[in-house]
Amino acid sequence: MSRDALKMVTIGGGSSYTPELIEGYIKRKDQLPIKEIWLVDIPAGEEKLNIVGHMAKRMVKAAGLDWEVHLTLNRREALQDADFVSTQFRVGLMQARIKDERIPGSYGFLGQETNGAGGIFKAFRTVPVILDIVKDMKECCPDAWLINFTNPSGMITEAIQTYGKWDKVIGLCNVPVMAMMTEPALIGKQLKDLTYKFAGIDHFHWHRVFDNTGREVTMDIVAKMYEGDAGLPKNIFNVQFFREQLEQMKMIPCGYHRYYYREQEMLDHSLEEFKGEGTRAQQVMRIEKELFDLYKDPNLDYKPKQLAERGGAHYSDAACEAIASIYADKRTHMVVSTLNRGAVPDLPTDHVVEVSAQVGAAGAIPLTFGHFQPAERGWLQLMKNMELVIDEAAVTGDYGLALQAFTMNPMIRSGQKAKDLLDEMLVANKQHLPQFAKKIAELEAAGVHVHDAVAAHIDETI
Amino acid sequence: MSRDALKMVTIGGGSSYTPELIEGYIKRKDQLPIKEIWLVDIPAGEEKLNIVGHMAKRMVKAAGLDWEVHLTLNRREALQDADFVSTQFRVGLMQARIKDERIPGSYGFLGQETNGAGGIFKAFRTVPVILDIVKDMKECCPDAWLINFTNPSGMITEAIQTYGKWDKVIGLCNVPVMAMMTEPALIGKQLKDLTYKFAGIDHFHWHRVFDNTGREVTMDIVAKMYEGDAGLPKNIFNVQFFREQLEQMKMIPCGYHRYYYREQEMLDHSLEEFKGEGTRAQQVMRIEKELFDLYKDPNLDYKPKQLAERGGAHYSDAACEAIASIYADKRTHMVVSTLNRGAVPDLPTDHVVEVSAQVGAAGAIPLTFGHFQPAERGWLQLMKNMELVIDEAAVTGDYGLALQAFTMNPMIRSGQKAKDLLDEMLVANKQHLPQFAKKIAELEAAGVHVHDAVAAHIDETI
Amino acid sequence: MSRDALKMVTIGGGSSYTPELIEGYIKRKDQLPIKEIWLVDIPAGEEKLNIVGHMAKRMVKAAGLDWEVHLTLNRREALQDADFVSTQFRVGLMQARIKDERIPGSYGFLGQETNGAGGIFKAFRTVPVILDIVKDMKECCPDAWLINFTNPSGMITEAIQTYGKWDKVIGLCNVPVMAMMTEPALIGKQLKDLTYKFAGIDHFHWHRVFDNTGREVTMDIVAKMYEGDAGLPKNIFNVQFFREQLEQMKMIPCGYHRYYYREQEMLDHSLEEFKGEGTRAQQVMRIEKELFDLYKDPNLDYKPKQLAERGGAHYSDAACEAIASIYADKRTHMVVSTLNRGAVPDLPTDHVVEVSAQVGAAGAIPLTFGHFQPAERGWLQLMKNMELVIDEAAVTGDYGLALQAFTMNPMIRSGQKAKDLLDEMLVANKQHLPQFAKKIAELEAAGVHVHDAVAAHIDETI
Amino acid sequence: MSRDALKMVTIGGGSSYTPELIEGYIKRKDQLPIKEIWLVDIPAGEEKLNIVGHMAKRMVKAAGLDWEVHLTLNRREALQDADFVSTQFRVGLMQARIKDERIPGSYGFLGQETNGAGGIFKAFRTVPVILDIVKDMKECCPDAWLINFTNPSGMITEAIQTYGKWDKVIGLCNVPVMAMMTEPALIGKQLKDLTYKFAGIDHFHWHRVFDNTGREVTMDIVAKMYEGDAGLPKNIFNVQFFREQLEQMKMIPCGYHRYYYREQEMLDHSLEEFKGEGTRAQQVMRIEKELFDLYKDPNLDYKPKQLAERGGAHYSDAACEAIASIYADKRTHMVVSTLNRGAVPDLPTDHVVEVSAQVGAAGAIPLTFGHFQPAERGWLQLMKNMELVIDEAAVTGDYGLALQAFTMNPMIRSGQKAKDLLDEMLVANKQHLPQFAKKIAELEAAGVHVHDAVAAHIDETI
Repeated sequence: MSRDALKMVTIGGGSSYTPELIEGYIKRKDQLPIKEIWLVDIPAGEEKLNIVGHMAKRMVKAAGLDWEVHLTLNRREALQDADFVSTQFRVGLMQARIKDERIPGSYGFLGQETNGAGGIFKAFRTVPVILDIVKDMKECCPDAWLINFTNPSGMITEAIQTYGKWDKVIGLCNVPVMAMMTEPALIGKQLKDLTYKFAGIDHFHWHRVFDNTGREVTMDIVAKMYEGDAGLPKNIFNVQFFREQLEQMKMIPCGYHRYYYREQEMLDHSLEEFKGEGTRAQQVMRIEKELFDLYKDPNLDYKPKQLAERGGAHYSDAACEAIASIYADKRTHMVVSTLNRGAVPDLPTDHVVEVSAQVGAAGAIPLTFGHFQPAERGWLQLMKNMELVIDEAAVTGDYGLALQAFTMNPMIRSGQKAKDLLDEMLVANKQHLPQFAKKIAELEAAGVHVHDAVAAHIDETI
Repeated sequence: MSRDALKMVTIGGGSSYTPELIEGYIKRKDQLPIKEIWLVDIPAGEEKLNIVGHMAKRMVKAAGLDWEVHLTLNRREALQDADFVSTQFRVGLMQARIKDERIPGSYGFLGQETNGAGGIFKAFRTVPVILDIVKDMKECCPDAWLINFTNPSGMITEAIQTYGKWDKVIGLCNVPVMAMMTEPALIGKQLKDLTYKFAGIDHFHWHRVFDNTGREVTMDIVAKMYEGDAGLPKNIFNVQFFREQLEQMKMIPCGYHRYYYREQEMLDHSLEEFKGEGTRAQQVMRIEKELFDLYKDPNLDYKPKQLAERGGAHYSDAACEAIASIYADKRTHMVVSTLNRGAVPDLPTDHVVEVSAQVGAAGAIPLTFGHFQPAERGWLQLMKNMELVIDEAAVTGDYGLALQAFTMNPMIRSGQKAKDLLDEMLVANKQHLPQFAKKIAELEAAGVHVHDAVAAHIDETI
Repeated sequence: MSRDALKMVTIGGGSSYTPELIEGYIKRKDQLPIKEIWLVDIPAGEEKLNIVGHMAKRMVKAAGLDWEVHLTLNRREALQDADFVSTQFRVGLMQARIKDERIPGSYGFLGQETNGAGGIFKAFRTVPVILDIVKDMKECCPDAWLINFTNPSGMITEAIQTYGKWDKVIGLCNVPVMAMMTEPALIGKQLKDLTYKFAGIDHFHWHRVFDNTGREVTMDIVAKMYEGDAGLPKNIFNVQFFREQLEQMKMIPCGYHRYYYREQEMLDHSLEEFKGEGTRAQQVMRIEKELFDLYKDPNLDYKPKQLAERGGAHYSDAACEAIASIYADKRTHMVVSTLNRGAVPDLPTDHVVEVSAQVGAAGAIPLTFGHFQPAERGWLQLMKNMELVIDEAAVTGDYGLALQAFTMNPMIRSGQKAKDLLDEMLVANKQHLPQFAKKIAELEAAGVHVHDAVAAHIDETI
Repeated sequence: MSRDALKMVTIGGGSSYTPELIEGYIKRKDQLPIKEIWLVDIPAGEEKLNIVGHMAKRMVKAAGLDWEVHLTLNRREALQDADFVSTQFRVGLMQARIKDERIPGSYGFLGQETNGAGGIFKAFRTVPVILDIVKDMKECCPDAWLINFTNPSGMITEAIQTYGKWDKVIGLCNVPVMAMMTEPALIGKQLKDLTYKFAGIDHFHWHRVFDNTGREVTMDIVAKMYEGDAGLPKNIFNVQFFREQLEQMKMIPCGYHRYYYREQEMLDHSLEEFKGEGTRAQQVMRIEKELFDLYKDPNLDYKPKQLAERGGAHYSDAACEAIASIYADKRTHMVVSTLNRGAVPDLPTDHVVEVSAQVGAAGAIPLTFGHFQPAERGWLQLMKNMELVIDEAAVTGDYGLALQAFTMNPMIRSGQKAKDLLDEMLVANKQHLPQFAKKIAELEAAGVHVHDAVAAHIDETI
């Protein structure tokens, strides 16, 4: 990476988040000598790609920059000699998310994008595609960095490392970003005056905070969290943690821990949405529609504030920061998914964790966190091993492994109903699960099909 | 241990299982030069102690042996210079078990003796008592072996090692015994011709089996399990494992895995019992009443066959076998709870596991099992860490830890209802939880009480 | 392994130890339904093969058995459908051992068969050959067990596992056998009444001993060791361990620890032999000559007592015992080189250790030993890692790794002289080190050659 | 640490290095609001304390600062309410070092300050004193940071953590500092453009280097090292590493690795010095005499350039940098001795390593390094375990452990001579080894004494 004319590629370029990414590049124009930005998408996303692509061109122009913005459906052309590749695609588009949410909901289970059955199927659909991208990168741009923020970000990064054998990857998430944006103010501090120590896995990590005199202020923040807002991403329903639990662990769990520490309430909320205003995907589709209507405006040349309503806000900015930190060797503190190497000694050294790291030219170097106490250790080891089972199932298409993953998942009460859910979701996602083709054919032959209520719902929303 | 006039002590001597223990000693009379058997109980158990104690005397006499059988309420007198101490007591007697089953049931949760909220509270009540016994042993019989089969056997053994700092302990369970009694016949073999490898923790372990040509026959047994009976203890409802799951893991889970692999069905069954014929404790009380009626018969001098109906059958015989193996240095293969020392490398070396071991004069030496695959590893690490949290809560009376244990437990859906359950169970068990006294007082002051329906039920059954 | 007509193959069948092996089979004739014994050797060993082979036939006949004894130079013919393959060959014959002893000696270093530079080169020569044998076995007898007692036994077993990917292997050594033969008498006991716990790696392990009352008697044995003979193999010079050191470690080191704990004295003794009566190989050649003269006697049909003079006595008997334990599923306690799997938690789980194991139809199942104290742990971790470096160098022919191995070896004082020694030994062993061919050619081109004094010595002894 | 009037304490304030420390504070006057500097020494060092103390006062005055410089023999007075305590003392003064060098030399062993027998005895003398200081700190300044650069720095830091139970400690060494000062120029770079990754233990670590494009430049530096100077501390004799070895390990060893990788040459050099110009201590005493003569000059108010001749140059500056990094929360990359916590997964998490860390208000947070290859792993595990044995011997005064440490140390060829050396050194250091008093009395009773030649040498140099 010594080039002074960077080629940036974004796969899933038609995403509604792209304007945040472009804004992020523009903010860092002095650190990043960009020459070309390539936005890549698939045929089904061509219309969105065009809308958001032209918006991107306007933004670049408004910033007075001469960067080339290319829109293409030809991934290999885009990847050729790329310096940085970022991935933010969604296999199966919003309809897939609707399935992830509504099919579990129809069984009385949690329907959510990265937790429970939905998260597992999102991984099943995404892993084969990301490995295909890695295969292309090995041929087209073997020295490029891959910045992944496609969810489930931790499992995707794990698959890239373990099955793709690609080391130059950093996985990102907006959850730690948002914690660091909102917490300092709770205790009257600025982020620069605090030392954050995060450790765990994506969407399942904890953190501790120290001020600039070395005093731990974790529990000061916790105390304030019970007075106000917790800085959650917009897609997480806000039910409070039990204070006695946090006082025992003496750490701050991430927002997604709600699904595990207040399972009943999160499930109830999910089922209410399912029955009432529609699941999150359906809400998001409305927001997305509004966003794309805005993006079509030939006069709009800046990121509209409505984008902040999306749950993934700040993801793209984090990606730009990671890219700038690597390129300009900034050695920034970032919380990233990367190989453990000992940072979390309760997990294997050679698998991916999400952890405080120093990000610079040499990549992400994790900062050591040390051992967890038994309660957090037990949870974390369960969840990381579940990730490994899911990734292996996603790669092999082994039905037994898929069933094991369902059984391990704390959001899925094991039993016949869980197995029926698995079967229906396999059939419903048939188009995007080539690895499970044989099993799906068997299931269909045995009469498994998508239930009418759900099917209707999906059709209606296309 | 070089004495030729052994003093055997059983704490909880009034248990209905005592005849099995006595029978076990009699069967091994040539290996064990017993001089005295001391059956100890508490005042509330005096009547049962007398009934079963006289039955024991008759059994010894009928066997033509001159062993002394002592009945006492004075534990320290019994422990003085003991050689082997076995523990099979139940703190709070059957009423406590009724609470463990009925209070969770009234919240819609699983009510079971060693799993879910019931298992946690059984540990909370038992750990302080066992540590008190260890304290007495240090003074009265510092060289004795402690053979524990009080449930939850794994957590109790862990507490004895970690908090009692007592190494000469072996924890026993009848689950592996029953597997090894029933499985060989399924494939037309005898136990002596098979090599069993068990590993995990108490009530949560797996095993593999090899025949005398070295061929692994694990999956042969699995295949037969789908044709017939699985050899479960009587207290476990029999719902089958998913075959695809077992074919993936290529091991045989223990009977209690049903609670985790078929959670819905086990919960449904538990709630049906709760509403209908009564929970297991209530069924057991009926069986016990019949047993004690039998034991009163001055002509009965052998173990009645009805005892096999109790879920704990074979526990006492396993205890006798462990004692004989140690005393006669038999180096028998037994599955015991003991310090890991590396046998299960996925768990810490210095905590208790349940594992195939060679039992002889040097105690239990675990046979190495090697690493688990991710699915089993994740489950096991969660469950072992939960045990550590439960034991620490049981010793410290820390409410936050108790809440963490409830949150980790896969049988308890976390949230407000789980916390309410915790609170009610603390208050309900007040008498046996001195370590939680302060918190219980706070809860009572805040109005927490045992719900009428449950309370009535407990009264009625005393 | 369900055959009732066993085919046993011994590679290196012309060894002087073969009569012990045959005697071992005969002793176990009731456990082993042998049909054929195949003794295999290379052309250079044909004469010895014939002598010892006919001796073997006489022994079998004298025992009244109808076993077929085949002598062959065709390894693949011998391996076809074999049940048990034992390996006891010496690549480069005795001349290679003379080089291993005399070249280091000429530099003032220890010259010894399995320690120091000699042990490293023995591994360099042997690893490629054993991997070739494994390759043949995969094709000719994929279900056979490989019982290795070719030295350095631990490193060879490691290579078979790690590079040969062959799991059905057991590595043997006579050192633990001899300890268990001589120590019990020191404290007036019999072996059957003692529990031995060995752990470490081949030629570098420790043990603890317990009597049949569970009392540890390790230090009782140590006390007696300072009164008499230590039961060392004949090839180890007897200098005593420092008593204060043993009292600190509270374990019994193996005989070979002398090289590490009394390095100066062992070096002095080695150099004395080098200058005086000749190194061990030269003494052994005299013993071997005597043995083969005996074996030629057409009336000799039993193992002559002179064979006990060889350092490897009891190796072959141990091999027979391992074979019988596997075939007859005896579940014997043996000390073997096998995969760690957690038995020695201070070493990686997936590499070979030498450890107490239960040997039966399912192979060797290690008994857990638990953690070592820091002093022993540090030594053991150095030595095991050195083994890994040596094996990798032996497989790859990487000169840097060979130099690293020399540098790690405590018997070789690092520096220019050590590097010169490495170079000369590479050139001297040229014929048996195809993997290092390129480097050896460079060395020869640079003028490295075997020094005259050594060379003459080797010629003279052929 | 929120004070704006810092109290800095230096124990061993009479050291010749103190001017470097004062210079270091002055350089960082804008980051460190110092109010008082306390230089503490023992009565035997009072004269030096006065000389160097007045020099320090002149330096502060010349810098135009109003800092108070206190000189005292009362350690507890100095420690009262201290903010930062730095330790740079030498128990037994230079005479002790002469013993460490000359007694081993008289046996033909390496005589060196931190390696071999000398390093072990330096630890034996220093550990009890540092633990006494920690005891005082717990009472006088429980919130202070302890910055240790007393050698052997790693073992002292380990003792502070493990036996002193004091967490706010950072151990420093100048070896990594000097590597980072000299290496960048070799490849035409500046330090700020390179990412250094160090890992290992004090005086036994390796490092890798990456440039600001992410390319690893480790082997570029190695290539240049064979063209010029390696940037060694002045106290290390410069013999080159074998290039093939470095090319295999693909890392740069530290300067002290010469003692292990070129043992023969380092020993030869040590023995030459022993016989000729005197050992390093004797050379240092001449340098020190010159330095103190300079320091007496009432006009000298800056650090004289001659101080750079001392092997410990840059130690004090590193200490100032660590202090400033903590106080000003600079999050600087420094190489420090601190708890491992997983940074070096081949060593225990709860012991001290020397490793790249981010140093700021929250202390030193190690950067993960990941696993070593077997050769380096084996060496490192041996050396770290030896440190643990030495520290335990230093705390307990256990002779068996001292002998184990001598046996493990690669610089000491084990055997009777090594044991004799141990005994003579114990007697020679009698005054500073209260923990070994009983054993020393036994040795003296048995006639062990300091040999005349050595004794005379020590007398003469006082």
